[in-house]
Amino acid sequence: MTIFCSPKLYLALAHYPVVNKRGEIIASAVTNLDIHDMARAVRTYGARALYIVTPLEDQQALVKTLVSHWTTGSGSVYNPKRCQALEMVCIQDTLEKACEDIALRGEGYPRIVVTSAKNHPGGISISRFRDLLETGSPCLLVFGTAWGLSQDCMEAADHILEPIRGNTEYNHLSVRSATSIILDRLLGRPSVE
Amino acid sequence: MTIFCSPKLYLALAHYPVVNKRGEIIASAVTNLDIHDMARAVRTYGARALYIVTPLEDQQALVKTLVSHWTTGSGSVYNPKRCQALEMVCIQDTLEKACEDIALRGEGYPRIVVTSAKNHPGGISISRFRDLLETGSPCLLVFGTAWGLSQDCMEAADHILEPIRGNTEYNHLSVRSATSIILDRLLGRPSVE
Repeated sequence: MTIFCSPKLYLALAHYPVVNKRGEIIASAVTNLDIHDMARAVRTYGARALYIVTPLEDQQALVKTLVSHWTTGSGSVYNPKRCQALEMVCIQDTLEKACEDIALRGEGYPRIVVTSAKNHPGGISISRFRDLLETGSPCLLVFGTAWGLSQDCMEAADHILEPIRGNTEYNHLSVRSATSIILDRLLGRPSVE
Repeated sequence: MTIFCSPKLYLALAHYPVVNKRGEIIASAVTNLDIHDMARAVRTYGARALYIVTPLEDQQALVKTLVSHWTTGSGSVYNPKRCQALEMVCIQDTLEKACEDIALRGEGYPRIVVTSAKNHPGGISISRFRDLLETGSPCLLVFGTAWGLSQDCMEAADHILEPIRGNTEYNHLSVRSATSIILDRLLGRPSVE
């Protein structure tokens, strides 16, 4: 497996535009543990940032409070390791603004790679995604909350990543599990066996 | 990568005996999302059960309420897929009782394989663990909560699984992420690449 020194990989957790159980487009509520778990995985696997995407001001305020508790508040003293993870978090209104923020870092506008629990025609494998990162191209890997990213969002992406299959027909992992597994498949360093 | 039709793999999430930040042995509180995420991963990867281990009666009652909401209550109608995951959950007072419960299923007393974020001498690799499962031997893979399993618990185990390394020196994944990654490395079926 190829090891990247520093892949230009960014993650986004989108709370909008996502769909509810009935397929209607909504802005979902932020889940505390999504942010912790995904930030810790991003830090562990050397991705460059985790964008929490929500246009809702109260939800943005909630994320800011959570992140500052662990990065500059008492949480940073209680558990400095959590600080190192949560300082990877950036808040943006939209996926477009997350892409613009990446471009402002001087790495160019990223390709958008979206994830889904369902199969989509033309989806790319982990291996092809790894090849893409090896070209040095910045990529924003997007995870949806609620019942997943909206159809328009999926269609506007540059690539759709093939879904994770386990060992059964059941494929209802949490977004926290899916993020961890995809980062491990993409960038992980299995022990010498 | 070898695919198991039906590995005799059981998971346990131990809330006792674990240590707190100061290394003192405690019984930790149950976290709702640990149970959801781990049960979903267990179901996805074809493990046989998830034991939630806690000797505290109020915590056992909390787990029972949570599980019954999703398996027989209104949650089972709202989201039947969650029912399929949470019906994998068993509650036990101790790890020993979880082992006895596995033996009662007619598969023999399991080997205990414990996990840790730290390196321990003689730890086994994922590959060796897979070989062990291939012999048909039942195994109970144990994850700790709080600051990890107690020293006595680690020493009493048959094997210690090598920790997950990512792509950096940071190794502070959540137990939810670690479970998902280990199941994927052990039993996952990567897409054809």
